[in-house]
Amino acid sequence: MNSFVENCGDPIRCIGQKFRQARITRGYTQEELADKAGFHRTYVGVVERGEKNISIVNCYRLARALEISMSELFTGIEYLVEQE
Amino acid sequence: MNSFVENCGDPIRCIGQKFRQARITRGYTQEELADKAGFHRTYVGVVERGEKNISIVNCYRLARALEISMSELFTGIEYLVEQE
Repeated sequence: MNSFVENCGDPIRCIGQKFRQARITRGYTQEELADKAGFHRTYVGVVERGEKNISIVNCYRLARALEISMSELFTGIEYLVEQE
Repeated sequence: MNSFVENCGDPIRCIGQKFRQARITRGYTQEELADKAGFHRTYVGVVERGEKNISIVNCYRLARALEISMSELFTGIEYLVEQE
C-alpha cells in the first residue's frame, strides 16, 4: 500500500499522503470524500497536502468515510516519517 | 490489550483510554510520559480523560514516547467507539 507514499518527512504530510492513497484506491474524488465525511469540499485537499495538523476526531471521520480502519491507515507511518 | 478500555463511546475518550492503557502497561506515570514527549505535565491526564481532541502530531509524539506504533495504538478503536 505504500507505492504512492514517498519521502514525506513529517507526520502531517505522511498522514496526508496515506489518506490520498486510500481515497484514490477507493475511487473517490476529494469532493466526494469530503461530502461523505461531512466536510467542506476543499478540506480533503488541505489534509492530503499536509497543510493542516488535523484533529484525531477529523482523522477518525475521514477514515470511517473511507471505510479504512485507523490501524490500517497508520500502518508503517513511523517508517515513512523517519525515512531519510 | 483491551481489558482496560470499557465503553468509552466517542473517539476522543477511547483514544484517551488507549493511551492510558499503553502508559500503564509500560510503567510510566503521567508526568514521566509528558516529560518524555515534551508536553506540560498535566497534558497526559487531559488526553487520557478524553478532555481534548488532540492533533495528529501530538498523538504521534505521545505514541513515539510510549514506543508504540500508531497502528497498534489504534487497533480496534472503531469497535470500542461503536460498542453499545
